[in-house]
Amino acid sequence: MFPNKKVQELVGSKIRIEMKGKKYVLEGILKSADDYLNLHVANTVELLDGEKSRALGSVIIRGNNIVLINPVN
Amino acid sequence: MFPNKKVQELVGSKIRIEMKGKKYVLEGILKSADDYLNLHVANTVELLDGEKSRALGSVIIRGNNIVLINPVN
Amino acid sequence: MFPNKKVQELVGSKIRIEMKGKKYVLEGILKSADDYLNLHVANTVELLDGEKSRALGSVIIRGNNIVLINPVN
Amino acid sequence: MFPNKKVQELVGSKIRIEMKGKKYVLEGILKSADDYLNLHVANTVELLDGEKSRALGSVIIRGNNIVLINPVN
Amino acid sequence: MFPNKKVQELVGSKIRIEMKGKKYVLEGILKSADDYLNLHVANTVELLDGEKSRALGSVIIRGNNIVLINPVN
Amino acid sequence: MFPNKKVQELVGSKIRIEMKGKKYVLEGILKSADDYLNLHVANTVELLDGEKSRALGSVIIRGNNIVLINPVN
Repeated sequence: MFPNKKVQELVGSKIRIEMKGKKYVLEGILKSADDYLNLHVANTVELLDGEKSRALGSVIIRGNNIVLINPVN
Repeated sequence: MFPNKKVQELVGSKIRIEMKGKKYVLEGILKSADDYLNLHVANTVELLDGEKSRALGSVIIRGNNIVLINPVN
Repeated sequence: MFPNKKVQELVGSKIRIEMKGKKYVLEGILKSADDYLNLHVANTVELLDGEKSRALGSVIIRGNNIVLINPVN
Repeated sequence: MFPNKKVQELVGSKIRIEMKGKKYVLEGILKSADDYLNLHVANTVELLDGEKSRALGSVIIRGNNIVLINPVN
Repeated sequence: MFPNKKVQELVGSKIRIEMKGKKYVLEGILKSADDYLNLHVANTVELLDGEKSRALGSVIIRGNNIVLINPVN
Repeated sequence: MFPNKKVQELVGSKIRIEMKGKKYVLEGILKSADDYLNLHVANTVELLDGEKSRALGSVIIRGNNIVLINPVN
C-alpha cells in the first residue's frame, strides 16, 4: 500500500504530526488528506516536550512541511 | 472534504497563518486560494507573541512556506 | 482573483518581497511573474531593518523561496 | 536503475533515513515508497548519536524532507 | 518576458547566484538553465564576504535552492 | 546541454555533492540520476572539513535537498 493510501487509512483516527522546525508537534483527528499529504485535522493540539501547549482546533497543514505522520493508539 | 476545498471554504473570513520561520504569524481576511495553497490575504497583520507587530495590508503568500492555516472565530 | 493573477496585476509597479531567511527583504519594480511566482524584478534593493543595504539591479527570484509579496504604495 | 527504482528494491528490508534537521535519523523496515520518495516505514526508531532514542512504530515520511536513504545490513 | 526566459538570456554571460543558507554566494558563466532554474555554471567561484573563497569549476545547481540570480557586468 | 543532461553525463564517475545544511558534503560514484536530480550514489563518503568522516556506502539522495553537484577529477 503506497504511503498516500496509508495516510488515507488514517482518516477518522487520531494522528501525530511532526513538522519542520523544532516547535511543531501536533496531534488531532485526521479529517482528510490529499496526495501531497496536505491534511485537514480537527481538535488539533500542539505539543511541547510531550505536553499540550496550545489548542488549535481545525487546521489545514501544508504537506511539504510535514516530516512524519504516525497513528496514535 | 479535501484540504484545499476546506481552505476554499474560508474565503471571505478571517484566518491565521503560521509560516516557516519563527517570526511569521499572520492574520487577515482570505481573499483567494489556489490548489497549492498560495493565498491572497487582505488587511494582513503580523503577530509577534500574539501582539500585532506590523500592518502588511494586501499580501500574496507562497503556499509552500505555509506550515498551517486555521480559522479565527 | 487567484493569487497568481493578483501578482500579475502588480507587474509594472513597486513590490516588496520577503524571502526565506531573515536577511532578505527586497523592493523593486515587478517586470514579470509566472505561475510558480518566479519573479523578474528591476531596480531591486535589499533592505536591512527597513534601510536600503544593497542595490541588486535586475534580479530573478525563485518563487519557492518567497514568503510573501505586497505592493508598495 | 533510476533512484526511485533503487528505493523500490529496498521494500521489505531495513533502511536508515536521514531527514532535514539534525535531530532526525530514523531506522525501520521499508513497507512502501512512491516516486516522490514518500515512505511508509514500520518498526521505526529514531536514533540520536547512533543510540535508539524513540520508538515511533509505523510512520509515513514526506519525501521532500528526506536527505538520504541507505540500506542497513 | 517570463523569469525563466530572462534567465535563458543570460546563458553565456557571468551571473551571481545567492543560494539558501548564508555561506553560498556563487559566481560563474551560465552554460544552461531549465524551467526549474536548475543551472549549469562553469568557472564557478564561491564568494565569502565578497572575496573569492573557493574555486568550484563546473557545477550543477538545483533550482529550488536558489534565492536569486543577477547578471554581473 | 541542459543541467539534468549534464548530470547524466557524470554517471559512472566520481562526484561531490553539497547538501542543504552545513554538515553534508558527500563524495561517491554516481550510479544513476533522474530529472529531479534524485541520485543513486555508490561508495559514498561524508566529508567534514574536507576529511572523510563517515562511510555511507550505497545511498539514495533526494534531489530537492541538493545545493550543488560537481565532478571530482
